[in-house]
Amino acid sequence: MRLVGIDLGGTAIKAGAADEHGAILARRSIPTGLAEGADAVLGRMAALARELGAERALGVGSPGLIDHERGVVLECPNLKALEDVPLRDELARRLGLPNSAVRLENDANAAAVGEGWLGAGRSHRDLLLVTLGTGVGGGLILDGRLYAGAGGMAGEIGHVCIDPEGPWCGCGRRGCVEQYASATAARRRAREQGLPAEQPGDLELLASLARAGAGPERDLLLAVGRDLGRGLAAAVTLLDLRCFVVGGGFGAALDVLAPGIQAGIEERSYGRRLADVRILPAELGADAGWIGAARLAPR
Amino acid sequence: MRLVGIDLGGTAIKAGAADEHGAILARRSIPTGLAEGADAVLGRMAALARELGAERALGVGSPGLIDHERGVVLECPNLKALEDVPLRDELARRLGLPNSAVRLENDANAAAVGEGWLGAGRSHRDLLLVTLGTGVGGGLILDGRLYAGAGGMAGEIGHVCIDPEGPWCGCGRRGCVEQYASATAARRRAREQGLPAEQPGDLELLASLARAGAGPERDLLLAVGRDLGRGLAAAVTLLDLRCFVVGGGFGAALDVLAPGIQAGIEERSYGRRLADVRILPAELGADAGWIGAARLAPR
Repeated sequence: MRLVGIDLGGTAIKAGAADEHGAILARRSIPTGLAEGADAVLGRMAALARELGAERALGVGSPGLIDHERGVVLECPNLKALEDVPLRDELARRLGLPNSAVRLENDANAAAVGEGWLGAGRSHRDLLLVTLGTGVGGGLILDGRLYAGAGGMAGEIGHVCIDPEGPWCGCGRRGCVEQYASATAARRRAREQGLPAEQPGDLELLASLARAGAGPERDLLLAVGRDLGRGLAAAVTLLDLRCFVVGGGFGAALDVLAPGIQAGIEERSYGRRLADVRILPAELGADAGWIGAARLAPR
Repeated sequence: MRLVGIDLGGTAIKAGAADEHGAILARRSIPTGLAEGADAVLGRMAALARELGAERALGVGSPGLIDHERGVVLECPNLKALEDVPLRDELARRLGLPNSAVRLENDANAAAVGEGWLGAGRSHRDLLLVTLGTGVGGGLILDGRLYAGAGGMAGEIGHVCIDPEGPWCGCGRRGCVEQYASATAARRRAREQGLPAEQPGDLELLASLARAGAGPERDLLLAVGRDLGRGLAAAVTLLDLRCFVVGGGFGAALDVLAPGIQAGIEERSYGRRLADVRILPAELGADAGWIGAARLAPR
């Protein structure tokens, strides 16, 4: 059986096909072209799905808050043109499929499904995918299945509060993990310590310096990791989770973040299980989203 | 089909039988008699199960950390005599059943199953049962099923950290919910404010005074509720949970705790969903444990 998935992003649409055993059959990436409007984007997505052989079903991952009943992206700052557009039903119509043959899911959730199926989490029934980028995103796999929660927003590790006196977050609350451990926050913290971090690539340089030996760069990434771990501790306590998969651009620094993450988890959770906690680098990179979407395609 | 459950406690063994539609057919309560040793307790449990008609299966809830594979209570301060005893297999043997016909589960998890099946959570697919007693316990129902996590310890809301500078907890960490919102903590906080709270019944008096009008008692219970809500916010964020069922002895004060709980959740989580969060009083009281255990009996 051929599974086709699309990962809709603000700048690129990534897509591919896999068989049910997880062999990758094809992959594509095209510009989203948001400026041309929703209709053009939908047309490109449908053409891509057809080209990839989506004859019976399609899975789609999209940023933003998803209304699963209606198959619509409700809120998404990066995809304003597609908000409230009947994405699922329009794609189904263009592909000549019933609406029930298209599944729309949040992209972080889709990526978690991808990593759980073919990536770093493939031997784990329960995991949290943590994406370190501009923000901190997450997706939960519990008992081997995506757990999206009542409103589809489960896994939002970036907005767990780790310090009630902490900095204000864009969400309107204080001390969210995202304010400490996103790439954006790490750059801000570096600058506050007088380390160069004006350019996006500077975090990679910081990580290299941290790898090379003791010094302010290593201390900074230890502190950033510890704050992330303090948030993950809530998942250890509430879900007895043992597996965290860390992805996103800043996830490339996981080797130097990990000692701090471990310390943060230990500081705020308890029990013999701590020795069993695994913090794994994501393995699928930018393919995680479409692979997870393909896996979520209705069967 | 007759479902039989036993709730093993430090002082009493509660048990009963229900049919598969949830009609209660029988209930019993006998002293645990721990002083007489594990063998005597097992004998009483088996006799009770036989009397209640456990001909094909039995569910058992017990305090402590459960090893599900071996069917054993690993650690339990209140049931020292039963630690490491092969509880599941011994009960099965005495009842002439295969080991696979007896299910052993943590008592807070069993109570969550009970409330989810026949109690306050019966119309909710996802809920956290929060038990306010000597400590703060919890059990999670996700997608309509018990979620115990990799090691069976999921739902431990009492050990979510709400203040990194907070008081030390028995678990070895700081600022756990339990240090703010258990009956024990509420009494300590009352005394710190010069309110009488030496006797167990004093919390009921405090709650009555809080109900009667504005004053230090109402302020105290508002503050206690807010701290609990700050912990629940982590479950709202991580699991997108909308339903909390509050039980335990101190749960009887829920009406005066609820405004604080709501405020604490709002303070530390975000989004439109907050209007949908339900904080419900548990309905099954001391029966929740055996009812959940009965529901968990293998079928």
